[in-house]
Amino acid sequence: MALTTPNPMGPWKITVYDQENFQGKRMEFTASCQNIMECGADNIRSLKVECGAWVGYEHSSFSGQQFVLERGEYPRWESWSGSNAYHIERLMSFRPVCSANHKESKIVVFERENFIGKQWEMNDDYPSLQAMGWGNNEIGSMQVQSGAWVCYQFPGYRGYQYIMECDRHGGEYKHYREWGSHAQTFQVQSLRRIQQ
Amino acid sequence: MALTTPNPMGPWKITVYDQENFQGKRMEFTASCQNIMECGADNIRSLKVECGAWVGYEHSSFSGQQFVLERGEYPRWESWSGSNAYHIERLMSFRPVCSANHKESKIVVFERENFIGKQWEMNDDYPSLQAMGWGNNEIGSMQVQSGAWVCYQFPGYRGYQYIMECDRHGGEYKHYREWGSHAQTFQVQSLRRIQQ
Repeated sequence: MALTTPNPMGPWKITVYDQENFQGKRMEFTASCQNIMECGADNIRSLKVECGAWVGYEHSSFSGQQFVLERGEYPRWESWSGSNAYHIERLMSFRPVCSANHKESKIVVFERENFIGKQWEMNDDYPSLQAMGWGNNEIGSMQVQSGAWVCYQFPGYRGYQYIMECDRHGGEYKHYREWGSHAQTFQVQSLRRIQQ
Repeated sequence: MALTTPNPMGPWKITVYDQENFQGKRMEFTASCQNIMECGADNIRSLKVECGAWVGYEHSSFSGQQFVLERGEYPRWESWSGSNAYHIERLMSFRPVCSANHKESKIVVFERENFIGKQWEMNDDYPSLQAMGWGNNEIGSMQVQSGAWVCYQFPGYRGYQYIMECDRHGGEYKHYREWGSHAQTFQVQSLRRIQQ
């Protein structure tokens, strides 16, 4: 079959609903939303990503747990939340991942914070870092050289998600405190490119 | 850094615990376990995959929901379960995925059951089939030509998991009824190679 060519510069389109299974109040966005309550909804309970890659957040102003949202249908919170350590049934803000570029993504991961220790340059998806020879279940720091990546706490793309982009922080994430407001440890056991 | 070379023929090793966070009764396995209760545990609540790729099952005798288990640490059921449609806190049987071969995996997906309709040969991971041009949120049938794959109900490797192997069913999965006893629809929105 012929595949369409993803457009690395967007446009972006996401349709969100305030009830599960694409029911209730329906809203379309082509750019960031900092607080869904300002749009007259108390929460987002289902969504469809129609164009581009997005990241959703637990709280308003792009804070709290992060959820990568690639093209497709998300009928319930379980379809985007990778962690049930405590239940996240909130998705209050979201924005496009402008630098997502599935074909040309490169990241360098370091054993320790501040870009020291063993390092490994990656340009593919790794559902298990340890299976590929990484020595432990942590990454100390990362430099995103191109594209956008999502790191996960557990193997197989499970657990907390951390979105890493070449066009934020200059692509440099030198300590887990820079990974997001929900990051509490260096534990990362899988990571992959984000697909535009 | 130098990466170890994964051994596509095993050996396999998994350590399971009957309590969360690697506590309680500890058991090591290097081959399939059809019913953990026959080993004196009522359930598996945490595990470490030390070698090879495995698949865990909700019920004994390799039935019910499937969970791909690649090398790494799984401290709680949330770390392997991709679906909370109803809570799965059971992992009662497991076996190695002998055909997993991350470097040489090929699958052909078909628009409709029985290998008809549009088809697409894949040898890479796809967190969103629709982003890559697949027309809808379903796959009708699949032929695994090499390696082992895991298909997911939702984008980004979320939701129900279906393990597809070249050395089972002759690699042919012509209807969702052949994907596993938990499969109820053709819905598949992401799929990826399983890493040995």
